Amino acid sequence: MSRTVEARLAALGITLPTPAAPIANYVPYVRVGRLLVISGQLCFGPDGKLTATGQLGAAVSIADGQQAARACAVNLLAQAKAALGDLDAVVRVVRLGGFINSAPGFAEGPKVMNGASDLMVEVFGDRGRHARTTVGVSALPANAAVEVEGLFEVAD
Amino acid sequence: MSRTVEARLAALGITLPTPAAPIANYVPYVRVGRLLVISGQLCFGPDGKLTATGQLGAAVSIADGQQAARACAVNLLAQAKAALGDLDAVVRVVRLGGFINSAPGFAEGPKVMNGASDLMVEVFGDRGRHARTTVGVSALPANAAVEVEGLFEVAD
Amino acid sequence: MSRTVEARLAALGITLPTPAAPIANYVPYVRVGRLLVISGQLCFGPDGKLTATGQLGAAVSIADGQQAARACAVNLLAQAKAALGDLDAVVRVVRLGGFINSAPGFAEGPKVMNGASDLMVEVFGDRGRHARTTVGVSALPANAAVEVEGLFEVAD
Repeated sequence: MSRTVEARLAALGITLPTPAAPIANYVPYVRVGRLLVISGQLCFGPDGKLTATGQLGAAVSIADGQQAARACAVNLLAQAKAALGDLDAVVRVVRLGGFINSAPGFAEGPKVMNGASDLMVEVFGDRGRHARTTVGVSALPANAAVEVEGLFEVAD
Repeated sequence: MSRTVEARLAALGITLPTPAAPIANYVPYVRVGRLLVISGQLCFGPDGKLTATGQLGAAVSIADGQQAARACAVNLLAQAKAALGDLDAVVRVVRLGGFINSAPGFAEGPKVMNGASDLMVEVFGDRGRHARTTVGVSALPANAAVEVEGLFEVAD
Repeated sequence: MSRTVEARLAALGITLPTPAAPIANYVPYVRVGRLLVISGQLCFGPDGKLTATGQLGAAVSIADGQQAARACAVNLLAQAKAALGDLDAVVRVVRLGGFINSAPGFAEGPKVMNGASDLMVEVFGDRGRHARTTVGVSALPANAAVEVEGLFEVAD
């Protein structure tokens, strides 16, 4: 029963990375009551490099954008595990905020963001179904293709 | 006393649309404690079509942007009603996040976003006065002119 | 013991401005339970003028962007003081959302946003360490260079 979420991660072949140490005067997450607020995560892959840089609707394909969004979601899970010790302490994925580095007029942000949303449902099942806001932005840190922030409900 | 909010909507000539079914692995809203988190809503009108597409500061006028923001707000109310059954269960509109599809340098986002804010106050009175963040983005889903997300306080 | 936060502000030579009255149907902050949600603040300086306008990666230097982010943070503190009466009632800075007016491809948003984050830690110490999301946007109200919104945990 316990560790079911991490068993699902293993079945998906996903190893959570060690979360990067903060490089400025902010932290990866803050817990307040039953809410866990996680900082925007960039699309760093297991090798510590961004999986995609540049803009959707220009140099980055939708498929690469989806992989980037999935990488952001993996990094959110790594932060949640660091915060909680055990991902089974997640009661609900409440909200994801998706920021897609986008050329003007790029209309397919939701398709890109599904890379993050699908992972949450694969991993958490119905508890992974979240509210979501997806927007296209002109620039992201380190020229990452995607950034995703998260809000989780956690056990008291 | 009851249904006062919906009486006001009727007086404004607003019929809430049936909220669209989710088309991906996310949901229109999540409730956590006294908070109702509603996904970003696009400016779909009563006919199911976006009321405006493209960028403010380019093809879309401020007046059309205001109408688009109002349409987003109507859609937030439709989701809140679906979540709560009765809009009188809304204790407070806590926050709106407004994303205006904007050409670089477009400075009038707040004027556009007033289309959403004004509706909340028309409908809820003082309970409708909310915190707000308005930014201009390079792209939005389906090339919508405006997207608005919402955070509501609801009765226990 | 009391007023320690405001003593630190004074030591930093910062006088909190009188928060601007709302100019539309929204308010500068809403409190819900232990959360204080503060509207996006622009980089208005003590003289009531924006400290920088235009885009990072174009007309605005990183140093000027950092000053702008710091000005936004000062304005968040002014709103928190108006809300709470005393900044010592802040239990934790939970989250800052930083929106950097950015030319496409501008990659140094986090460096700019440190202007806001550093101030929070200077003023609140460890209670000032927050979760953070930084993105680059195509436009901001009044063509401000930076906008920052805040979420604070406050005493019951």
